[in-house]
Amino acid sequence: MKNFKLTIEYDGTDYHGWQIQPDKKTVQGSLYRAFHEFAGEDVKITGAGRTDAGVHAVGQVASVRLETKHSPTILRKALTGNLPRDILVRHVEEVPLSFSARFDATSRSYNYIFITRKTALWRRYYHYVKTDLDREAMRTALATLRGEKDFASFASSSDIKSTRCRMMKAELMENGPLLTISLTADHFLYNMVRTIAGVILDVGMGKPIDMDELIEARDRRAAGKTMPPNALYLMSVTY
Amino acid sequence: MKNFKLTIEYDGTDYHGWQIQPDKKTVQGSLYRAFHEFAGEDVKITGAGRTDAGVHAVGQVASVRLETKHSPTILRKALTGNLPRDILVRHVEEVPLSFSARFDATSRSYNYIFITRKTALWRRYYHYVKTDLDREAMRTALATLRGEKDFASFASSSDIKSTRCRMMKAELMENGPLLTISLTADHFLYNMVRTIAGVILDVGMGKPIDMDELIEARDRRAAGKTMPPNALYLMSVTY
Repeated sequence: MKNFKLTIEYDGTDYHGWQIQPDKKTVQGSLYRAFHEFAGEDVKITGAGRTDAGVHAVGQVASVRLETKHSPTILRKALTGNLPRDILVRHVEEVPLSFSARFDATSRSYNYIFITRKTALWRRYYHYVKTDLDREAMRTALATLRGEKDFASFASSSDIKSTRCRMMKAELMENGPLLTISLTADHFLYNMVRTIAGVILDVGMGKPIDMDELIEARDRRAAGKTMPPNALYLMSVTY
Repeated sequence: MKNFKLTIEYDGTDYHGWQIQPDKKTVQGSLYRAFHEFAGEDVKITGAGRTDAGVHAVGQVASVRLETKHSPTILRKALTGNLPRDILVRHVEEVPLSFSARFDATSRSYNYIFITRKTALWRRYYHYVKTDLDREAMRTALATLRGEKDFASFASSSDIKSTRCRMMKAELMENGPLLTISLTADHFLYNMVRTIAGVILDVGMGKPIDMDELIEARDRRAAGKTMPPNALYLMSVTY
């Protein structure tokens, strides 16, 4: 038995998210079939994080145990051949049997990308906003999110044990017409990035939001709306 | 009666091209319906150039005659409201009644965009190629296309009077992982940009192609394959 760590990129547009579901096109389900074709047997695929319908990934990570004599390179090439073109296995390496892509992850990074040029193109990848946003206010608001805090105000459901997260990075980056909110934390709550993106956009549009008060509220209703999924990218997972 | 010049951007992914067709989703057909909603009557929409299914436009131009008391700005806003989000009327101006978007055009510019990073994303917008292309050979080959020449070797059908075109610009541009063939000519023959893109790609991959001989042949079979439509953009039209 071998254990493989896969780094996966996908265009989430045409998928009902990462997690395998009966009768729905999902990324995990497509990988599952690609593995079945390669190995002739069912495998268990553990993903570092679930992504919702429409969310993209540049560096999703999964671990898969497999009885095989083949090298990681052979495995990567075989999977590429068995997968649709909107899923790409970027890297495969053999890891200790004990490795879990989900439980051993120490941080995840997400980008939420706005485009400040009104356009008919790239609608699947960016969220259009007007250009006259107060970038300094957005940066200041993002800074208040750094550190270990209770992010309950930014989580869509509360059926989890702890809403405390350690946010290592919360930045705004600008590149031409693209304006990116970049977040790194030990873990993220459900819809947390999309909710944060909505709050930071509100701040940029001049809404008077007291970030400390919002965090203190520990109530999802205190934050604004959940932003659409198509501008969200799971960028990387570290171990 | 007024005559309007429209500058239109669209994502061609979900369209059967520019030209209106019964029972098919086309850009011209969508504009036609948007005008009908605005004016309550049928209009004739003249486009500067037809784009095939899947081809995008950043600066397609159309002219439309209309009996209206409204300003170009009102017209632009009304059309935007009546159009799907993958078609955007960027600009509307009133022009003399004699103006034709098709017959008065003096040049058209097209981009064909390769991406040198293998990716699952942006497949609808770029064509993936390996990065080790001979860019100098590509630039040299493009230079041979400049000037007034017979482009019959690059045209898919020969049911047109003249296959002579005046190519004002034929360049290769590089920006990060994007490699763009940029062409400007007085007019283009059917599938001409996609055929040129294929030949230039062949050159970049080291195929020994004598460009002068290829042009001299005046035979479509002398050139390589027609490249896919999704990486082609009608950039602008000048008058």
